Amino acid sequence: MRALRLLDWKSEPVMSEVPDPVPGPGQVVLRVGGAGACHSDLHLMHDFEAGLLPWGPPFTLGHENSGWVHATGPGVTGLEPGQAVAVYGPWGCGVCARCRVGAENYCENPAGAPVPAGGGGLGLDGGMADLMLIPDARLLVPLPAALDPVTAAPLADAALTPYHAVRRSWTKLAPGATAAVVGVGGLGHLAVQILKATTAARIVAVDLRPQALDLARESGADLVFTPGDAAAGIREATGGRGADVVLDFVGSDTTLALGAAAARTVGDLTVVGIGGGTLPVSFFSVPYEVSVQTTYWGTRPELIEVLDLAARGLLRPDVTTFPLERAMDAYRAMERGELAGRAVIVPAAHG
Amino acid sequence: MRALRLLDWKSEPVMSEVPDPVPGPGQVVLRVGGAGACHSDLHLMHDFEAGLLPWGPPFTLGHENSGWVHATGPGVTGLEPGQAVAVYGPWGCGVCARCRVGAENYCENPAGAPVPAGGGGLGLDGGMADLMLIPDARLLVPLPAALDPVTAAPLADAALTPYHAVRRSWTKLAPGATAAVVGVGGLGHLAVQILKATTAARIVAVDLRPQALDLARESGADLVFTPGDAAAGIREATGGRGADVVLDFVGSDTTLALGAAAARTVGDLTVVGIGGGTLPVSFFSVPYEVSVQTTYWGTRPELIEVLDLAARGLLRPDVTTFPLERAMDAYRAMERGELAGRAVIVPAAHG
Amino acid sequence: MRALRLLDWKSEPVMSEVPDPVPGPGQVVLRVGGAGACHSDLHLMHDFEAGLLPWGPPFTLGHENSGWVHATGPGVTGLEPGQAVAVYGPWGCGVCARCRVGAENYCENPAGAPVPAGGGGLGLDGGMADLMLIPDARLLVPLPAALDPVTAAPLADAALTPYHAVRRSWTKLAPGATAAVVGVGGLGHLAVQILKATTAARIVAVDLRPQALDLARESGADLVFTPGDAAAGIREATGGRGADVVLDFVGSDTTLALGAAAARTVGDLTVVGIGGGTLPVSFFSVPYEVSVQTTYWGTRPELIEVLDLAARGLLRPDVTTFPLERAMDAYRAMERGELAGRAVIVPAAHG
Amino acid sequence: MRALRLLDWKSEPVMSEVPDPVPGPGQVVLRVGGAGACHSDLHLMHDFEAGLLPWGPPFTLGHENSGWVHATGPGVTGLEPGQAVAVYGPWGCGVCARCRVGAENYCENPAGAPVPAGGGGLGLDGGMADLMLIPDARLLVPLPAALDPVTAAPLADAALTPYHAVRRSWTKLAPGATAAVVGVGGLGHLAVQILKATTAARIVAVDLRPQALDLARESGADLVFTPGDAAAGIREATGGRGADVVLDFVGSDTTLALGAAAARTVGDLTVVGIGGGTLPVSFFSVPYEVSVQTTYWGTRPELIEVLDLAARGLLRPDVTTFPLERAMDAYRAMERGELAGRAVIVPAAHG
Repeated sequence: MRALRLLDWKSEPVMSEVPDPVPGPGQVVLRVGGAGACHSDLHLMHDFEAGLLPWGPPFTLGHENSGWVHATGPGVTGLEPGQAVAVYGPWGCGVCARCRVGAENYCENPAGAPVPAGGGGLGLDGGMADLMLIPDARLLVPLPAALDPVTAAPLADAALTPYHAVRRSWTKLAPGATAAVVGVGGLGHLAVQILKATTAARIVAVDLRPQALDLARESGADLVFTPGDAAAGIREATGGRGADVVLDFVGSDTTLALGAAAARTVGDLTVVGIGGGTLPVSFFSVPYEVSVQTTYWGTRPELIEVLDLAARGLLRPDVTTFPLERAMDAYRAMERGELAGRAVIVPAAHG
Repeated sequence: MRALRLLDWKSEPVMSEVPDPVPGPGQVVLRVGGAGACHSDLHLMHDFEAGLLPWGPPFTLGHENSGWVHATGPGVTGLEPGQAVAVYGPWGCGVCARCRVGAENYCENPAGAPVPAGGGGLGLDGGMADLMLIPDARLLVPLPAALDPVTAAPLADAALTPYHAVRRSWTKLAPGATAAVVGVGGLGHLAVQILKATTAARIVAVDLRPQALDLARESGADLVFTPGDAAAGIREATGGRGADVVLDFVGSDTTLALGAAAARTVGDLTVVGIGGGTLPVSFFSVPYEVSVQTTYWGTRPELIEVLDLAARGLLRPDVTTFPLERAMDAYRAMERGELAGRAVIVPAAHG
Repeated sequence: MRALRLLDWKSEPVMSEVPDPVPGPGQVVLRVGGAGACHSDLHLMHDFEAGLLPWGPPFTLGHENSGWVHATGPGVTGLEPGQAVAVYGPWGCGVCARCRVGAENYCENPAGAPVPAGGGGLGLDGGMADLMLIPDARLLVPLPAALDPVTAAPLADAALTPYHAVRRSWTKLAPGATAAVVGVGGLGHLAVQILKATTAARIVAVDLRPQALDLARESGADLVFTPGDAAAGIREATGGRGADVVLDFVGSDTTLALGAAAARTVGDLTVVGIGGGTLPVSFFSVPYEVSVQTTYWGTRPELIEVLDLAARGLLRPDVTTFPLERAMDAYRAMERGELAGRAVIVPAAHG
Repeated sequence: MRALRLLDWKSEPVMSEVPDPVPGPGQVVLRVGGAGACHSDLHLMHDFEAGLLPWGPPFTLGHENSGWVHATGPGVTGLEPGQAVAVYGPWGCGVCARCRVGAENYCENPAGAPVPAGGGGLGLDGGMADLMLIPDARLLVPLPAALDPVTAAPLADAALTPYHAVRRSWTKLAPGATAAVVGVGGLGHLAVQILKATTAARIVAVDLRPQALDLARESGADLVFTPGDAAAGIREATGGRGADVVLDFVGSDTTLALGAAAARTVGDLTVVGIGGGTLPVSFFSVPYEVSVQTTYWGTRPELIEVLDLAARGLLRPDVTTFPLERAMDAYRAMERGELAGRAVIVPAAHG
């Protein structure tokens, strides 16, 4: 089968012909419907050096995947060939307390995982191929009938990640509360949709780019600001109180400082974007009892909820498909900032 | 001033001329904008006998009120004459642990309240009058600018009551969950709107009347059933699991049994309607760990949230206004089942 | 190997010689350290008729088990022969949303479970044998070093069941709150210990038997009552408010009525005991917003927490051991009410 | 009456004779039983300059107070002369959403408070006097009978502050979890007692001083470490996971870094101590989804819970009393580090 493989750090991936995977006990082979192309793949190609991560090339790219069950290994129950599924992406050990409740994104026994702190497309072979080996059936989640396995791929990361960040703050987002989304790109615009669907909070969006602010409004934002106006604008719009929850999808020094300036006492400031920034936290830099935290991906039960939202039309990722042989075109468009929405690599014509 | 007063149990209220109220220390006099006519007022006129309640006539009707601050007594701060306000209806002692956090609906020191287990329009003079005495400034909540003090009255009871019932179940109403509203009348259709605005749960509505089911659909219900089909229909629509939350706005033996038959294990079955029914709870009559409870009215912080929802157009009570002198026409229409939406009694023409 | 088997409904179990179990893929064979003798086993022997349950004899008794890993089937990882483990007793399908987070006690796909709504000792072979087949490695939980696999068996049911009932009510058990435990037997006295260890609530215990009230005091109860005095006594001890949480380990009509009479508004009345009683729930029989629910067993993550409490000495089940060949003596002593604490059947002399 | 007054910034307070306060409408005069001497009072004497705070001298010191109702102004209900009470210390506006539920520590309308962001002993006259004016009856909380108004004073701050910090993290402190208390002084040793009373978490205490570690052990700590060993020791004691909750009562750069190094993913790192430190928060400095926040004092409902814990002997502040005329001796002993436990200033000999 074909596979887009990263053969070395600091190199471009290569389309290769590799043997079809064969499922062992408890394993499943997925016929890939779609594999999302993620900005973090560019980091894999360009930025890492050997030894920085606990895993490395060669492996097939694609860590946000959906498709159909192709073959099941011995002992797999509850999955039928041809069944449409999404792949839960963070692959943990499966047995620690976190994994046992589906929070493999925070697995506490990475040495017991298929690869430490990675997964398919992140050290192991991912979805930019005709087939993909899933190391355990628990990592697949059935797709609701209303979802298309070709375009559902981004739900497994670009939607699950903001969903987790929003969901953990629900108790602070009662009517009358304000949520601010900083950075309205691939994840941020889905954060706005998730806030709109699951809370009655006022939604404020912040971005530099006019088209991003348009996207925010279409996605459900009540108010939009450019970064320079945001802190003062949010204070004014909230009677001086500030935003109960700030979700930062950029994560630079600047946006983090903006979040701290815009947050309400006892609020949340959640950093999702890996922009390399740092927020100095003290009694003088952040309002009282604002909780500052990073998040990473989401849980398996949350993925089921994300799929339900999408199946009901409450979550609508903007997707552009590329055939597998043109996968590098997708990445190049992404690098040039020319992509509208998420690029999904489609290995073959299906259904 | 004029006041529609209940002078005795088992009698029709009488329009009377009474002295204007004068605010004592900490008290406020409200110029009434609107006073909702509630089904429970008919019970007050027809069904109670002396001694059943800890309070009784004579008093002015109207326990769901909004208007403008008319005069403030000594020591009142933070309220200006002319300011638009809603009246928080359950009047407790103000000092027990429940009252201190605004849950006066569950005051634990009723002997310390203005009247035990009552309030304005419930043993004390209510809002069907030109003016109304509010015994403590804490019982007023400022109206957002977008709300009209004439039509906002139903928010204080017909919206606050279902809001409290929905809000306490939020944690069980994540995406993928199902909420069932049984009885789509004055409170039930607002429950549907509240569920729609504050959760992404699927909403099922149950009623006998076709027009009520239409109202449910307009309010946001995904599925509607007549009572005879509801339990089976809800099981089928949820893959056999049942409704995570059932809100019963009727409260008869029949609807309670329906709720028990439709509820999912570890769900909520909340009885809001005072239909006189009883549910026999045992291991055999209700699924495992379904929580069965009544609720009564709501809290002061919840009223603020309700006002916010309404100000933003997420909550739209259907209101028909009647001038104060025609208040009895409203009750008679209500008795004949001819009222569309909530009747609001309007003492005077206001700007 | 030896096994105490129930061969038919309405019969006494028989000590039999049966083949040793062999683990299939994903399965484990346990060398039994201890198997708790539970009152519900007496119901299995005496009260059920064919067709009442979705499973039936013949099977080996014993649904509350601990021991050592004896052999693992293909594909089992993370468990070593000789490792001390407890058996999580409610065996669900393993793949529904409830099972995926370890709440197999509320599995929503019983047709997919090893036996519908049962488990080892409940339709399938249990722990009153030298060896026991565990159908999936996920159903084993490692024992902390401080726990003895011979005497730890009751933690898997007699402790896990009250733990689940207490834990779900933690938010209502802040300092100043009162918890009432009705029925201080095998589960109830552990409920008192769990409340003492995990909350700062005042603990009230209710029982008819003086020695049960002594056990309650030793376990940490602040106040004890006989049933006739309990409702008035609890009201008096709480300044009229009532108990925030009532845990009923009897479940008769009488104790349920007592719970309703003793509960505080917005409290919990949780029915654990299968005493066959029914509580008629209405606005007039239970204080406002008291949540009435049954519970059944507990979750796998909760079992881990129970084991931690016991390992640290905060939970101390009172255990009497019987060799496997004298198992029926244990049941007979239980029937005569002569057992102090939980009987644990010990198949063999272990290190 | 006598009062220990701070007459200017950067000066020692002076014992003065001042007129007795007279209660206005809604106000109460307290006969002071005890007034805690707090380390922050030393900052008031030595460290602040005019203009740094929104309030300033002259005022009477003492912001942690208990005593008896001496006189009530017009309109005060529910309090009797001679009644023993604690003073809730953070005095807010009383009408914003936060104040309405008793969280005046986070009042959002400081311009409406008696003094902005201050209170009695913090810009207004405090408890180091025979009498103290309480600007609103809501700021008093009745003492349980078991508590002595002379020694209860530290509960209002030295206990309430750690209580708030612990309570907000309860959901992360189930059995099996670990809490780390960094800095076992006046607040820290009470944090250990509060953790012990209200959770079953393992408690680790960290301090440089051997006698502080002894105090931690006596207060209920399971393990103690000096700062240099703490991060590694906590990792080892938790199987590598880290502490679910770290409470830092020092708040220096060093202790904050220690907390970040010791915390478990998805844990809490709460900064209570105003040691002037800063924690740089990024994806690389703190484990995933650890929430970092400051806290300030506590809420009125929490004070009630603190009083309940103390009345039941679960919270035992170590108190040394000084007569009012020797108040400066207390501060001097505090400065020299010679004080064992909290100093409470006692204005007069009381029954």
